[in-house]
Amino acid sequence: MTFLHDIPLDEAVAAWHAALDVVGARRRLPAESLPVAAATGRVTAAPVWARISVPHYHASAMDGYAVAAAATVGATLTRPLRLPVGTQAIYVDTGDALPPGADAVIPIEEAQRLESAAGTEIEILAAVTPWKNIRQMGEDIVATELVVPANHRLRPQDLGAIAGSGHSHVQVYRRPRIAILPTGSELVPPGVELKPGDIIEFNSIVLGAMAEEWGARVSRLPMLADDYASIKRAVLAALDDHDIVVVNAGSSSGSEDFTARIFGEIGEVIVHGIAIRPGHPVVLGHGHGKPLAGIPGYPVSAMVTFDLLVKPLLQRWVGQEVEPRPTVQATLTRKVLSPMGQDEYMRVTLGRVGERIVATPLSRGAGVINSAR
Amino acid sequence: MTFLHDIPLDEAVAAWHAALDVVGARRRLPAESLPVAAATGRVTAAPVWARISVPHYHASAMDGYAVAAAATVGATLTRPLRLPVGTQAIYVDTGDALPPGADAVIPIEEAQRLESAAGTEIEILAAVTPWKNIRQMGEDIVATELVVPANHRLRPQDLGAIAGSGHSHVQVYRRPRIAILPTGSELVPPGVELKPGDIIEFNSIVLGAMAEEWGARVSRLPMLADDYASIKRAVLAALDDHDIVVVNAGSSSGSEDFTARIFGEIGEVIVHGIAIRPGHPVVLGHGHGKPLAGIPGYPVSAMVTFDLLVKPLLQRWVGQEVEPRPTVQATLTRKVLSPMGQDEYMRVTLGRVGERIVATPLSRGAGVINSAR
Repeated sequence: MTFLHDIPLDEAVAAWHAALDVVGARRRLPAESLPVAAATGRVTAAPVWARISVPHYHASAMDGYAVAAAATVGATLTRPLRLPVGTQAIYVDTGDALPPGADAVIPIEEAQRLESAAGTEIEILAAVTPWKNIRQMGEDIVATELVVPANHRLRPQDLGAIAGSGHSHVQVYRRPRIAILPTGSELVPPGVELKPGDIIEFNSIVLGAMAEEWGARVSRLPMLADDYASIKRAVLAALDDHDIVVVNAGSSSGSEDFTARIFGEIGEVIVHGIAIRPGHPVVLGHGHGKPLAGIPGYPVSAMVTFDLLVKPLLQRWVGQEVEPRPTVQATLTRKVLSPMGQDEYMRVTLGRVGERIVATPLSRGAGVINSAR
Repeated sequence: MTFLHDIPLDEAVAAWHAALDVVGARRRLPAESLPVAAATGRVTAAPVWARISVPHYHASAMDGYAVAAAATVGATLTRPLRLPVGTQAIYVDTGDALPPGADAVIPIEEAQRLESAAGTEIEILAAVTPWKNIRQMGEDIVATELVVPANHRLRPQDLGAIAGSGHSHVQVYRRPRIAILPTGSELVPPGVELKPGDIIEFNSIVLGAMAEEWGARVSRLPMLADDYASIKRAVLAALDDHDIVVVNAGSSSGSEDFTARIFGEIGEVIVHGIAIRPGHPVVLGHGHGKPLAGIPGYPVSAMVTFDLLVKPLLQRWVGQEVEPRPTVQATLTRKVLSPMGQDEYMRVTLGRVGERIVATPLSRGAGVINSAR
């Protein structure tokens, strides 16, 4: 039997992270090499340097005639100039490489093509300056330049820059693997006939979907009754091929709450109880060099603590920080008394009354999934 | 040979959508039934009504003794009251169903358990009011209540509410299926040795990743040379099992630009040329009752037109609107001249100088993928 001893959130997180650092459980995940097309949303494990310049050759930016700019000097409206096609003026499409000796392109609509005894020529009415209508080599990216730094979450356009600068593959962190184990003798799967006292197990669906949004690979393990031996066995098995195991629930200190005891036997319990509402019966520990988290069963408590405690680890493993949530100053529409010594996370709706922003508290019930939506 | 005739964006979209409406190509996609756990990010095709209340029974909110509140009237500090355990006071754990006749719970720490000749009793020092420490049936969700409306993109917490209100499955729109066909004789795949004039094909990676972010299932078709017959064959084949086919590029009016001609032969070309930069050589049409889009080859043009033209269709099919981009008033740091009669989309960086927001234009080259990042 263990007892809950609520400590402040910051203190709990600091203690857990310090213990995880000792066993190496907060190190970055190993890198893997992925085809660029498969890497959206993944995070670079190393900087990407351009292997080639983009464009990797001087390219015509127009359909027209590639010329040496020097050869066009003197052409005017009153003194047109002719250049032989095939030698001094070479037809190019947009994107074609510039032929040797050429350093400018005369657009097709500014060159009149003439056939005569002298062969095919173009007649132009103006000189061009060097590099006119040319996309110069390296205009976009210069070889060896940094294309994407390390620890960067890849967006579609990043993939274009990586592929365009000569890479078929990119080094990204392996996705974090998280196991979520729903426990509780009262749990039943969604959709079955219910008896009074049955609780539909949906926390693992919610937490799993959250973790997937954060980039993790999620194993939702089969639900277990409150049975010490089978829960311990499942946690041990999950530790083999996951980076973190989350048990939901059994995190309090009742006679059927086995999470803390099991974590203690497998490894070490660092925190049992955090001074936040909803959410206080939390177990944080580690085993086999990996974090273990016991998350409370009430749906809102589960979401809040999962977000506060598990997300930062998943992000850390792939070189990311959790972005602070946007904050706003608002006036509560009614008095709220929080329990002494606890930080309360409330769900509110925001409204504007004149210049003021007002916050109306939603139901505080930790079981009220509707208030989290 | 077709000719580009640039028309304003709004006009182009209106004409295309009108033509698509005639052939039924803007209707919602069919619904499919998914297990709740597989439905994150998907969009509901019908409202979800609660099959059961949540909780679906009166549940104890504490570990303690379930009692009839009326039986506790008169208990005070000076006149404690005793209730026999098992009949008038029944032990319940948090979450247990309330036994018949009980309508309140006395927390375990407020009831002293006594053993005497009279049997096991609890002694209480205060009366409880009805429904004290009870989560009443329907406190969170009442059966038949709307849980999630139609056309709602499902977040993790929505899945909890759907499963919790008695559903194992949820009706969502089938994901839009998009085929992206890269064409161009100069194209080579990422990572190969390059000759001058070769262009690395990465637009299909960028556009494909964008479409996936919008919820579509993407087929990146094998790249094809500028060959009329093979492109037409590929478009026809793709129409069989996709909701939209996007050809990239060949959307201009050069001798090797087959997109408009092919669309015209398969179905109808509605728009060829839009008065926006980057992006103007666009082909919009339909065939076999489905939209066809020819997107220009320059990377930035491709991204801009894909976002402006294809995203609204994908969203529409699943009952969504494209959210307007956030806008900001800013002062350009240098003079910009846009082509007459064209709307120009520029990439800029924003900065703050005193009270003013200033916008510094990035390279305008339509090929400059770096400017889109």
